[in-house]
Amino acid sequence: MFNNLLSARIKKTPSSFIREILKVTQNPQIISFAGGLPNPISFPVEELKTSTNEIIKKYGNKVFQYSTTQGLDILREYIVERYKKLWNMDITIENVIITTGSQQALDLIGKVFLNKGDKVLVEKPSYLGLLQAFMMYEAEFVQTKLNDDGLDIEELKDNLKTHHPKLAYLIPNFQNPTGLTYSSENRKAVFEAIKDEDMILIQDDPYGELRFTNDERIPYIGLNQTNKNIYLGSFSKIVTPGFRLGFVIAHKDIIKALETAKQASDLHSNIFSQYQIAQYLQNNDLDKHIEKIKNLYKSQASAMVDAMKEFFPNNVKFTIPKGGMFSWVTLEEGKSALKLFDIAIQKNVAFVPGDPFYVSEKNVNTLRLNYTNADEATIKEGIKRLAKSISEI
Amino acid sequence: MFNNLLSARIKKTPSSFIREILKVTQNPQIISFAGGLPNPISFPVEELKTSTNEIIKKYGNKVFQYSTTQGLDILREYIVERYKKLWNMDITIENVIITTGSQQALDLIGKVFLNKGDKVLVEKPSYLGLLQAFMMYEAEFVQTKLNDDGLDIEELKDNLKTHHPKLAYLIPNFQNPTGLTYSSENRKAVFEAIKDEDMILIQDDPYGELRFTNDERIPYIGLNQTNKNIYLGSFSKIVTPGFRLGFVIAHKDIIKALETAKQASDLHSNIFSQYQIAQYLQNNDLDKHIEKIKNLYKSQASAMVDAMKEFFPNNVKFTIPKGGMFSWVTLEEGKSALKLFDIAIQKNVAFVPGDPFYVSEKNVNTLRLNYTNADEATIKEGIKRLAKSISEI
Repeated sequence: MFNNLLSARIKKTPSSFIREILKVTQNPQIISFAGGLPNPISFPVEELKTSTNEIIKKYGNKVFQYSTTQGLDILREYIVERYKKLWNMDITIENVIITTGSQQALDLIGKVFLNKGDKVLVEKPSYLGLLQAFMMYEAEFVQTKLNDDGLDIEELKDNLKTHHPKLAYLIPNFQNPTGLTYSSENRKAVFEAIKDEDMILIQDDPYGELRFTNDERIPYIGLNQTNKNIYLGSFSKIVTPGFRLGFVIAHKDIIKALETAKQASDLHSNIFSQYQIAQYLQNNDLDKHIEKIKNLYKSQASAMVDAMKEFFPNNVKFTIPKGGMFSWVTLEEGKSALKLFDIAIQKNVAFVPGDPFYVSEKNVNTLRLNYTNADEATIKEGIKRLAKSISEI
Repeated sequence: MFNNLLSARIKKTPSSFIREILKVTQNPQIISFAGGLPNPISFPVEELKTSTNEIIKKYGNKVFQYSTTQGLDILREYIVERYKKLWNMDITIENVIITTGSQQALDLIGKVFLNKGDKVLVEKPSYLGLLQAFMMYEAEFVQTKLNDDGLDIEELKDNLKTHHPKLAYLIPNFQNPTGLTYSSENRKAVFEAIKDEDMILIQDDPYGELRFTNDERIPYIGLNQTNKNIYLGSFSKIVTPGFRLGFVIAHKDIIKALETAKQASDLHSNIFSQYQIAQYLQNNDLDKHIEKIKNLYKSQASAMVDAMKEFFPNNVKFTIPKGGMFSWVTLEEGKSALKLFDIAIQKNVAFVPGDPFYVSEKNVNTLRLNYTNADEATIKEGIKRLAKSISEI
């Protein structure tokens, strides 16, 4: 119904496959590797409870009133200090806007930059939430192959030359869906390739803090070398996703445009939760908390990798995550992950088939596994069931 | 900077005049009638604090985890029951989606229905947040004159015939910015005029609950007579705006499309605050709380009207609010509210000049006054200063 009245953009956009799968996986019998959910035992519940009571006492009515579009100053100030410390960025709160999760940041960036038909360079495969967000602005995607060490530089150069994209969207750390991380060399090569293009580079980084190894953090692509970079961050994976709080760091003129778009989108993000997070960050050492999450996920990732090594046939490949939340599995050539999904769901195990992460490929032989939202024994059992399913396709 | 990269829509959209004014009025010396802020003394702080601690205890981790796009079931269920009771609506939770404030509802409706150049019928003057939201989808507005009893029916008919708008956006109760309410007869005439058009009617109703008189509530336009109505509601004016929680009631196919758009926009609204509000509504009698707010605002509205009667010259007209948050002032023909603003701000009193509520008129002689966010003595003093300013233009 109403089909004649709907916009062109919405007719072209399918409902998110992942969120449809999540509905199926509500069934408690199912072991789900499908979502991208943090392990709930990682939430600092007691600390957040304390902070919540403190802010009501400390700020009174203000935590319930309308607020400014750009976000709470003390929270923006915290982000400024953290990024100065981590990356030596030369920024002030004028370079920061708080968003209703990183997903809103993507929506606002689409609003601010994209005209119908504008080209956007993305990884192949890419985060499907980005594809969905930018489809709403009728962007055209140019997918560039992702290798084990980062973007395929030759393909990148070809795509830049042929398509002159206005935006590029990359997830250099523990990418979603593949779990891969761009090497330092690859980042330099990417920056060399794009630095003279008149384009904006968006680096989405929800997982960067979740590095399992003690290697040094690898700097962002073109860090502090251009004013055309947009950095996205989020509290979803390191504190709580339920508050829907993310942020954008960029040139102040970009922030200004995002602010105008945000006024029209939701006026401002939940101010109560901005105070909650700000108070939590004032009371607690975030790095210590992240350390705990990393240890938890590292064990869970190992459990999954060990089980895959034990149970998967040799012709099935998978990435070995050094951080983040996902492993990416490649079946034998010609096999369909969608078909595998139908078999697996009968055996009460779920995952996300690769299809929604590609722009045009269909019936691909790849799939995404999440390991952060199940304990080690459950992960082992789930991989066993999945291996059994693989043997039946 | 970056002008060559920005989208057409953002280049055309000015930053919200009101939110710019709000920045000016941060100065505590200024008496501000500019915002649309609820009186903070109306927030049920203690009750919300109790509810907050209860939900953490009762639901644990769940209040911090990712959640579903359509919103918390118990909250949607509450809305269903309330609208069944109030309006005898035949609805289930499939007809309800929770949004990040009503502003997001407007954004999502724009996303779902509007192609560039689509016509939208709005009141003259109209809510500027709607104009801003739909400008992002490059809609064309058709403004229809608002009289004391509602829409001008002749102009409405002409506009329908000439423009065949796809959407109409109306605020039938205590309209923003004018404070006017459509009479029962006018609502019937509006429905007669539009009922055979292939269009969607959006009725935004953030203020409907705030009726100062004991008259019966007047039913929505075309209530329960068409599946093409979209009803918007909000917790901002009756509980707290800081949580950014509103909702849409509509045919389930419309809700489905809005859900897809919301997935791409922010995944879901803050789930912690959805639990907070749901628990608050379970613990407390909302109608009793609304009664308190109404008494408060009724006195404040009277204080403003009395002061305007006492201090304004006779050639200045103003609406007498029977509910809601605003009065609408019309200066002598030919006077400029923008010019008045410059004088008034020197005397430390602020308001919103009418200009941003119109699509094409400039330098209008109308202005919006809000009375909900100041006590009665302050209101009297502010109106005195404003009267002095009027005498100087």
